[in-house]
Amino acid sequence: MMLSINLKRVIDDSYSIYIGSLPTISHEGKVAILTNPKVAGLHLQTLLSRLQAKEIYIITIPDGEQYKTLETIEFILDRMFDHRLNRKSLLIAFGGGVIGDMGGFASSLYNRGIDFIQVPTTLLSQVDASVGGKTGVNNRFGKNLIGAFHQPRAVYIDPSFLTTLPAREFGAGVAEIVKMAVTFNASFFEWLEKNDLREGDNLQYAITKAVETKAGVVEEDEKEQGLRAALNYGHTFGHVIENETKYETYLHGESVAIGMVMANDLACEAGLMSQNEATRVKELLMKYGLPLSYDIADVEKFYQAFFLDKKSADTVITFILPCGIGDVEITDAVKPEIVKKVLSTYHRVNQNA
Amino acid sequence: MMLSINLKRVIDDSYSIYIGSLPTISHEGKVAILTNPKVAGLHLQTLLSRLQAKEIYIITIPDGEQYKTLETIEFILDRMFDHRLNRKSLLIAFGGGVIGDMGGFASSLYNRGIDFIQVPTTLLSQVDASVGGKTGVNNRFGKNLIGAFHQPRAVYIDPSFLTTLPAREFGAGVAEIVKMAVTFNASFFEWLEKNDLREGDNLQYAITKAVETKAGVVEEDEKEQGLRAALNYGHTFGHVIENETKYETYLHGESVAIGMVMANDLACEAGLMSQNEATRVKELLMKYGLPLSYDIADVEKFYQAFFLDKKSADTVITFILPCGIGDVEITDAVKPEIVKKVLSTYHRVNQNA
Repeated sequence: MMLSINLKRVIDDSYSIYIGSLPTISHEGKVAILTNPKVAGLHLQTLLSRLQAKEIYIITIPDGEQYKTLETIEFILDRMFDHRLNRKSLLIAFGGGVIGDMGGFASSLYNRGIDFIQVPTTLLSQVDASVGGKTGVNNRFGKNLIGAFHQPRAVYIDPSFLTTLPAREFGAGVAEIVKMAVTFNASFFEWLEKNDLREGDNLQYAITKAVETKAGVVEEDEKEQGLRAALNYGHTFGHVIENETKYETYLHGESVAIGMVMANDLACEAGLMSQNEATRVKELLMKYGLPLSYDIADVEKFYQAFFLDKKSADTVITFILPCGIGDVEITDAVKPEIVKKVLSTYHRVNQNA
Repeated sequence: MMLSINLKRVIDDSYSIYIGSLPTISHEGKVAILTNPKVAGLHLQTLLSRLQAKEIYIITIPDGEQYKTLETIEFILDRMFDHRLNRKSLLIAFGGGVIGDMGGFASSLYNRGIDFIQVPTTLLSQVDASVGGKTGVNNRFGKNLIGAFHQPRAVYIDPSFLTTLPAREFGAGVAEIVKMAVTFNASFFEWLEKNDLREGDNLQYAITKAVETKAGVVEEDEKEQGLRAALNYGHTFGHVIENETKYETYLHGESVAIGMVMANDLACEAGLMSQNEATRVKELLMKYGLPLSYDIADVEKFYQAFFLDKKSADTVITFILPCGIGDVEITDAVKPEIVKKVLSTYHRVNQNA
């Protein structure tokens, strides 16, 4: 006879994303700020002036995607143990996407999870990475393959941090904004074509639009069973590029830009998107100085690397392909020949084709 | 002006715990079984005979609490990547508490979380560790300090696996059963005093009682904000003992048994429990050959180690103290002098006092 006991488990941890000037953040317990020397130098004073807590610790890690590893997570956790943080402590991830992903991940692991707040300081992390609870690190098999879904208590997006952002990083952030528009919002895409994000209040408007889109998608499908996968548009290709170039050549947003161009080529080849639409996306990316191509040295190797993508099943690759602008299809029905054909147009000996 | 976007997040992942003969487990995707050589030798054939899947991989790790580390987690993850598991894959944790904690943790990390099933093969893991979603590893700062709350899809408790369990491990499991009774169920405690778990159907009854208690507590308070902390009765002391003895001298349940005796001493000293009740607990533990004392070499060092306990805040230690049998108090109001006084009765030079 088999006896069955049901364990009911319903968790509600909704949270708010604030866009505007950073307000005062108060916390009763200890607070640890995770940041890097660059962000600390530019903006830590601002954060500290808005922070009210009894004890504040600063944990600094080196800047760069190449440090987004389990080793760095262990370093962060060790510092958290050194400072004797406990379950009532708070971690503030203060920096770009790498800081946010690792701060979220470390806080999910420490004592099986403590609260954390995202205060993103780059455009990329403000419009994308800081929202939705995806945290994690890269490993030798690929990008973001180890991690946790750990939602922040709150996200504070203050566009004034962006005034010090280098142009390349600004562009990398724009790539993710373009991603949201191409996948979900045609009229926002048209607005982006007509307006320059470097002028006036355009940036704050675009950030808000992008975050609204992202939040809506995450609410529908946090664990990426379906819809959320659409936000990986450009990433299937981009992750392979980042991995091949050891995260040294391109910023994340830059590799996503190239990845979107590649995905568009595939979408055109599959008859989902018109050449004209693909060109419009290219032109928008070009406006912000984003790279649009990549030399694929070994097409077969590039193709095989897709299989380590989290979205792909055993024997098929899942692609996120635009059906024109403002709509997207998640498909695993693209024939390998077609994929390889598109990839070979990026093979260096064919580069002039 | 500050704009606010609310991200609603409600997750329902309720699950069932089955007690009885292991049924057929079917899974459409790949299945990885995490186990150790001892359990594999004794019981893997049984599990495999009940398992229906297209591809099955066996991941084996060494037996023992000393391997419950982040290093072993990385080893497990590497094997999962080697086998190209994906989000539709399933991990089955097949073994005792260490296997369950690490299988759950690895499956929470892989691709930010894949499904896992607990098939516990020791009494301790059947009555306690396999239920409630606590997963994780130890580090140099202490026990279970790094981990995740990751609920299994299901738990299958088959008491027939226990026929091969050594007496010491059986006793270690009984310690956790006694814990459930002392903290939440006086009549179950009386039943335990009158019956021998090594006879007839008593064991299945006790497992069911213990699991019901545990499931009820976890439903109320999964994240251990309050009630669930009561299940750490004996653990506050036990974890320090395990850490001091490098997990080599005692099985987890054995150190919990000593910890419960120490907690009872403190409860008596604080006037919460009578000496007679403390003796009844001691006698019940003795019936199953459990250790009841430990030589504290350095009282101050032992005391300081409490502060790394996850339940404790910055400057106070949280103790779980029985108020008689079947009821419990979670308190941080015990004076350091009283704690140290009780600890010194375990100091080796005072051992004969």
